[in-house]
Amino acid sequence: MSKIIDETEAERHRAKMEKRKAVQDAEIAEKTVEKGLLIIHTGTGKGKSTAAFGLALRMLGRGRRVGVIQFIKGAWHSAERDALETFGDQVVWHTMGEGFTWDTQDLKRDVAAAERAWNKACELMADPTLALLILDELNIALRYDYLDLRAVISTLAARRPDLHVVITGRNAKPDLIAAADLVTDMTLVKHHFKAGVKAQPGIEF
Amino acid sequence: MSKIIDETEAERHRAKMEKRKAVQDAEIAEKTVEKGLLIIHTGTGKGKSTAAFGLALRMLGRGRRVGVIQFIKGAWHSAERDALETFGDQVVWHTMGEGFTWDTQDLKRDVAAAERAWNKACELMADPTLALLILDELNIALRYDYLDLRAVISTLAARRPDLHVVITGRNAKPDLIAAADLVTDMTLVKHHFKAGVKAQPGIEF
Repeated sequence: MSKIIDETEAERHRAKMEKRKAVQDAEIAEKTVEKGLLIIHTGTGKGKSTAAFGLALRMLGRGRRVGVIQFIKGAWHSAERDALETFGDQVVWHTMGEGFTWDTQDLKRDVAAAERAWNKACELMADPTLALLILDELNIALRYDYLDLRAVISTLAARRPDLHVVITGRNAKPDLIAAADLVTDMTLVKHHFKAGVKAQPGIEF
Repeated sequence: MSKIIDETEAERHRAKMEKRKAVQDAEIAEKTVEKGLLIIHTGTGKGKSTAAFGLALRMLGRGRRVGVIQFIKGAWHSAERDALETFGDQVVWHTMGEGFTWDTQDLKRDVAAAERAWNKACELMADPTLALLILDELNIALRYDYLDLRAVISTLAARRPDLHVVITGRNAKPDLIAAADLVTDMTLVKHHFKAGVKAQPGIEF
């Protein structure tokens, strides 16, 4: 399927890309701030926690340490945890949840688990060796008011300035979005569950 | 910030979650199909390639092999590649791109690079030891018509039935979306580049 390109087309492409490069270079030159980012992955689509673990991988590739706190998940086996164990003590992982709220069916237990997880998050935020902290499904704990939103936001705002934090989960609270540096909504366009395809190893878990 | 929960609230929560669990269980029971998914991560937000590498991590945690082809990127250092090298021959990585189109400014070279990358993709699709193949930024090559869309879609459709494929990049073509099982649009809600924050190691690269 080799493509035929004439010289006019090639030159038009070159001129367009030369302009585009000038715009890109100018944009990059404008950006001078370095800071730990507050990152939120929300939305109903797949990829919120997955992209957080992809960021973990990138940070590990830089030789830095990464912390993970799972606020909700906990009852089942996690292949990403197995994979991250390959990096030894570059990764600190705490599974603090007790499963989905519809599995526990116990509000007091859910609240207690969320509070324990948040206390552990505060502990890790104080660890100067960590470059990235993933608070997986914290949005779920905030959505159900298991934790006080204002206290969470003010603690995050007061963290050391070079720590990157990623918060995942559907229904991120508007005040948390307002406090964040980078927010991506993983928007569901099409999902195979609708077509009767089951959760498969390596993809969903 | 401990939360006070009265018994009525706790019981209401339990009843609601019991119903929700019944719905969830019924939904899971309906899903019986297992198949290799064609997955697309598109949109203007951050997280498309990152979530693909998160999926790679999950698959590696399952002890399976993963292939990566980078269609566009190539000119710069990739921390995720360094991290994945930890997994030895569980990962097959080919960087076939020559950088952004606005860096090469050479249409013929871009087309030739895309064709080489696609040939390599076809080669990896034929490798029965791979469970997941990531075609990073293939959408960009398709958007600029470096490759023939119909040929790409029919080759993907004819792949072996248990191979999961993830295609990343902005502006996924509608016909490719129609052919896919799972499509997520990483929608930009807020980006720190707008606030003058530069690309930082472990986050952007």
